Order: sequence, then structure tokens, then C-alpha cells
Amino acid sequence: MNWEAAYATRMAQVEPSPIMELIRVMGTRRVINFASGLPDPDGFPIAALRDGAAAVLAEDWRGGLQYGEAEGYRPLREWVAADLRRRGAPATPDQVLIVNGSQQGIDLVARSLLQPGDTVLTEEPSYLAALQVFASYEATVRPVRTDAEGMDVEAAAAALRGAGVKLLYVMPSHQNPSGATLSESRRRPLLEAALAAGVPVLADEAYLDLRYDPGEPTPLAAAHPEAPVISLGTFSKTIAPGLRVAWLAGPAAAVARLALLKQVADLHTGSLTQRLVHRYVSGGHLPAQVARLRAVYRQKRDAFLQALDRHLAGKATWTRTAGGMFVLLRLPAGRSAAALLPAALDHGVAFVPGAPFFPAGGGEESMRLNFVSPSREQIDEGVARLAKAIDA
Amino acid sequence: MNWEAAYATRMAQVEPSPIMELIRVMGTRRVINFASGLPDPDGFPIAALRDGAAAVLAEDWRGGLQYGEAEGYRPLREWVAADLRRRGAPATPDQVLIVNGSQQGIDLVARSLLQPGDTVLTEEPSYLAALQVFASYEATVRPVRTDAEGMDVEAAAAALRGAGVKLLYVMPSHQNPSGATLSESRRRPLLEAALAAGVPVLADEAYLDLRYDPGEPTPLAAAHPEAPVISLGTFSKTIAPGLRVAWLAGPAAAVARLALLKQVADLHTGSLTQRLVHRYVSGGHLPAQVARLRAVYRQKRDAFLQALDRHLAGKATWTRTAGGMFVLLRLPAGRSAAALLPAALDHGVAFVPGAPFFPAGGGEESMRLNFVSPSREQIDEGVARLAKAIDA
Repeated sequence: MNWEAAYATRMAQVEPSPIMELIRVMGTRRVINFASGLPDPDGFPIAALRDGAAAVLAEDWRGGLQYGEAEGYRPLREWVAADLRRRGAPATPDQVLIVNGSQQGIDLVARSLLQPGDTVLTEEPSYLAALQVFASYEATVRPVRTDAEGMDVEAAAAALRGAGVKLLYVMPSHQNPSGATLSESRRRPLLEAALAAGVPVLADEAYLDLRYDPGEPTPLAAAHPEAPVISLGTFSKTIAPGLRVAWLAGPAAAVARLALLKQVADLHTGSLTQRLVHRYVSGGHLPAQVARLRAVYRQKRDAFLQALDRHLAGKATWTRTAGGMFVLLRLPAGRSAAALLPAALDHGVAFVPGAPFFPAGGGEESMRLNFVSPSREQIDEGVARLAKAIDA
Repeated sequence: MNWEAAYATRMAQVEPSPIMELIRVMGTRRVINFASGLPDPDGFPIAALRDGAAAVLAEDWRGGLQYGEAEGYRPLREWVAADLRRRGAPATPDQVLIVNGSQQGIDLVARSLLQPGDTVLTEEPSYLAALQVFASYEATVRPVRTDAEGMDVEAAAAALRGAGVKLLYVMPSHQNPSGATLSESRRRPLLEAALAAGVPVLADEAYLDLRYDPGEPTPLAAAHPEAPVISLGTFSKTIAPGLRVAWLAGPAAAVARLALLKQVADLHTGSLTQRLVHRYVSGGHLPAQVARLRAVYRQKRDAFLQALDRHLAGKATWTRTAGGMFVLLRLPAGRSAAALLPAALDHGVAFVPGAPFFPAGGGEESMRLNFVSPSREQIDEGVARLAKAIDA
């Protein structure tokens, strides 16, 4: 039979991710890899997770192996709510839904709000896999003017008043791919504009804890308790992504609706992995783990910025990112990062072209570089190779 | 802000599951519970899973804690393909996608095919959580005449020729809720009708292995290698549902499209749990585990049918189910199972009213009874209480 003719129209918007395709290709080549979105596996807290898994399977296996509630494992929801309160964002356990990675959180929120033709506002650039979710619901993504301090509030306020705007998606801290953080002074005004327009805000806090510069980051929701914010957090960056445990938090009624959708989508998040994460965080391991990650990633960030200074000064520009996993580098105007990629691979280094992160086009001169995944030895060598490829 | 006004129209079809609500209520009452959809936790192979988790976290933790491919862990896909071939359904690893429980398989297939107004054909009755998925995509469900041998082929063939029919959903073996199995003689003709109509078939094989009568069940796809079948299987019923590991298999091109959708939905299924399941099945544990489950569940099935004979002969009718987890009991015409439920709870026994499983209405006199979850002592006592409630 003709499957292509059978698909729903939304499938025309579900296309291979250029990044995933690139990662596939690179699996077969020996290059220094700045292209991935992976955290450094040396940062996984394997000893504590080993003990935790043994303990769950000894003491709570009947719960850990059985079906669970769509909303998630209650003690983990309680922990997340308490952690949000500690960070200045009021929340109760009923305002928390556990999801199968923050990608699922983006998908569920989009599914609850978006119909074909609706508009989603995002930063420019924005997280590629979120853009793919919005496209899959046949929504239009409209980027808002964004600078080193995040989204421009006046531009956002004007865009929020537009017809058919159903969602504002932001990564407030150490954004993927640019590394930018929304400045404190813009936070409350941005949420006031969303509240005034009656448009929900999805605040993707995936990189919140990965801060290397001074200052303790706060969730965007803390800036305005009445604003219609759904916060999204994950244990993928601080514990391990392979567990697929993340959470979203927002107004209780909205979270209850999202829990119904979660049940339709996949019943519930894994019982064993939720308990494993809960045992880890309730055991008090997370602060030391975050401190360890910050120390290692800070050194890598610094090494990466030094290597960029050493090898690429005058040949490209970049921002000094305060946290996260990525630097967005820009070639001189008129040069194409995608066109450079084959030469870079020949020189033994890989990156992700930045253009797919720009929802309205543009960004051809940009590339995303992951500085946490390579080793410190690879960082200087890889940037040197990149410089040679640019010169070639 | 007004969230209700912000939702996409599909959210009007995303409603609380009457079963989940009932399970919530029952959590607070001490009753013999025939209402749940849970397997018996005493059947979980805890010793092997404990060893397996320790081994994965000792030997393969870098893979088990890291991001993985959307398609799933390759060795597990290879195992599933080999198992399908062993059962007579040709499959290669590229034809297998690992999903986060079979509920997600239903959701992804529906999301790829259904637009508002499309029609899905199902058995009558059919699996409630599948009906909820189809409704969430604003599709219409049309049940096909079904008897103790499964879906009527002539009725299905006529329905398949109808306009707007985009999917045929069947549970070929030991169906939820009726326990019925599609007879061998109907299998190929049903798939021929779907092939002729160009309508994909989603064959939900969740209960395939749970057979207590003689005969080795086969997947529906084995009946016609050219038919457009997507098979759906799960480790939830044979190993443990809390792991959330299941699979779908179909034509390679269709599975590749579904993998793209899986990536949009939640990137990939848990790396740790996939490896845990793979270690279990590749270690050769599954045949003995299935044999153990069959022996225990067969005794419970027999005890349940004997208890029904003893306490309810002449007061209700039921089918002698050959496998699965459920008996569908019917009260005399005119009586309502939902109306009986409060009295049953007062007598200390719970069931699920059958009406929600009937997509076109009807079934008010029916109830679904789980015979694997209660203990053997509870079975006779619970059926006796049910009989008293019916008499009261």
C-alpha cells in the first residue's frame, strides 16, 4: 500500500533532524566532536546510581516495576516542588508532572495548545528540537529579536499582541545554542507582557544549573508568580540523560490537563527510573554533583574560550557564555558554516551548522560548538583544526 | 489567564479515564480489586532484574546513562526482529522501533495517520486507552461487529471500504477487555481486506504470550507477510510494566517515519531500561518466565471461572477466555454495571464497568474483571461478594 499517501498532513513537517543525521555520519569518522548535544559521561554519578538502583530493586521493587500514576511518582513530585520553592518559584506537588525527558514536556505543552496555523514565539536562535515539535503540530514559529541578554522585551510585547499567538517558548538560562541568559531586568517585564496578552510561556530551564560564572541562576517563573508560566526542568544534564526523567510545573489546573495528555501519550514515566532519581536527589547527592559538574565544565568552557582566542581571533566572533554546554560561533558575513563542514571533517573536527536553529532563516554563518563533551586535550586541538579548515 | 480558552480543540477529547478515576477512589477503600489493569507483582522476575541492573551499571553504564538513538537500542531491536521471525512474521532490526510502553506505540501510529474527522475501525469492545488516543486526534471510532472469534471479516471488509477510514486497530490475541482471540481462519482474510482497501492495521499483541489454553499464539502479521501491518508488542506483561519498554514493527519505511515522530515526542526510550530488558531476554530468561506466568495465571483463570460458575450461574454470562488478564461479564439485559458499582464497593469488591470500552455506546450491562491481580483466596471471596451485590 501507499504509506506516503496515508499519512496525516502533519507528517510533512516531521523531517530528519540535520543534527541527528550528522551525528549518525560522524559515528563512522574519527573526528574531534564539537557537534554533539551530549553531556560528558565522566560526569555521570555512577557509584551513587549503582547503589540507588540496588536499593530500589531491594526495597521498593513492587513499586519500581509496576504501573504508576500518570502524574508521576509522588515523592519525586514533592521534591521538585520543594526545590522550586527554594529557588523562589511557588509550587506544590500537584503543580508538578513527571515526564519522559524534557523533550516530552515540550511536546505535551505544544499538543495541548497548538492547532495548525497557530503561532509560537521563540528566541532567535532557538532550540532545534523544540522548533521541530512546534512544526509537527503545523504551527508557525516566529522568532523575536534576541541579543546577548536574551529576548528583547519590547519586541516580544509587540509580537505577543499578534493574532494567533498561542505560546512563547524561551530558554531563560544558558540557552541552546547561543549560551545567552535572559537578564534579570528583562524577566518580569517579559512575563508581564505574556500575562497581559494571555499567552502561556514555556520556560525551558534545561541548563539552569550549569552556570560557571558568579551568580546563582533562578527559574524564570520566580520573576512573576502570577504569570502563566510552565517551567520545564530535567535531570538529564545534572544526573544522566539515559534515565529519561524530567518534569514540568505550572498552574495546577493546567498541569492536571497535561497529565491527562501524558496518560494518552504513554501512560506514565518509568517507575524504576523515577525512584532511582528520587533516591538520588532525596539522598542529598545533587548539590555536590552540580558543584563537581560546574567545576569540570567551567574548566572546559575556559579552555574552549582560550583556544578560540588563540586560534580564531579576527577570523570569527563568539559570545563568552556564562553557562550551559554550547558556544555559538559566527564566521565573517557571507561565509557558510554548512559549506565549511566537509572541509572541517577532512581536518578532523565536527560542528553543527547554526542555520537550523534560526526559525525564520538566516544564521548561515553560525555554528554550534559543544565544549563539555570533548576532553580538555581535544579542545585546543579541535579548535586549531577548525581554524585550519576556515583558512583552507 | 484563561487556560481553558487557550487549549487546542483536541483537548475537548482528552478526558479523565473512568478507570483511572476508579482506581484512584479505590486506593482509599479496602476492597477485593478486580478493577485494575495491573499484572501480579509476584510474577515480576526480580532476582534476574536485580542482577541485570547491577551488570548494566557495572559494564555498560556509559551507554546506559547517555542519550541514545530514537529507533532504540540496536541489540534489543535485533532481538525483537529475531523473535518475530521465530514466530513466523518476517522482520529485520530496521523494521523495529523501541517505544516507551505500547501506549506510546498506539499514540505514535495514530499521530502519523489521523487527522480530525478520520475514521478508525476497532473491535467491539476495544481497549479503552487506545480509544482515548484516537479521540485525542479528533478521529471517529467505528466498531466492527465482533464475536467470540474476534472481528467479523465481512463486516470489516465492508467498513474498510468506507470513506475516511485511516486505520484498523485490533488486539488479535486474548483481547482487553473481552479475552477473545481472532480465530486462525479469519486472520488472512482480514489482512487481505485491509491490503485491498489500502488501510494500515495496528495489531496490538500486548497479551500474545499470556495463553493458558493449548496452542501457541502467533502474531497477526504472520498470517500475511505483504499486508500493511504494524505490530505492537510489550515487555510490560511478561517482564514488568514499570520499565516502560515496548516495541512496534512494520514496513521499514513506515517505521523510519515513526522513528522521526518518536524523536519529536521524547527523543528516545530510556537507555538503562532498554539495556536491562535486553540483558534479560538475551540471557534466555524469557521462556521460563512466560511458562511461570502462564502456570500461575492459568490457575487463577481456572479459579475465577470456577468461582463464576459457583456463584453467578444463571445470574450473568461470560466467555471462557483462553488467555490474557480479563473476563468480560454480562449482567442480564437491562441491568447497568455502572449502577451496580456502588453496591459492589459496599460489599467489598471492585470492577470496571464495560460501557467505556464500547466506542459506539452500549455495553452498559457488561463489566471487566481482572483475574490475574487478585490472590487465589481473594478470587472466590470476591466473586461471592459480587454475586451478593447483584442479588441485593
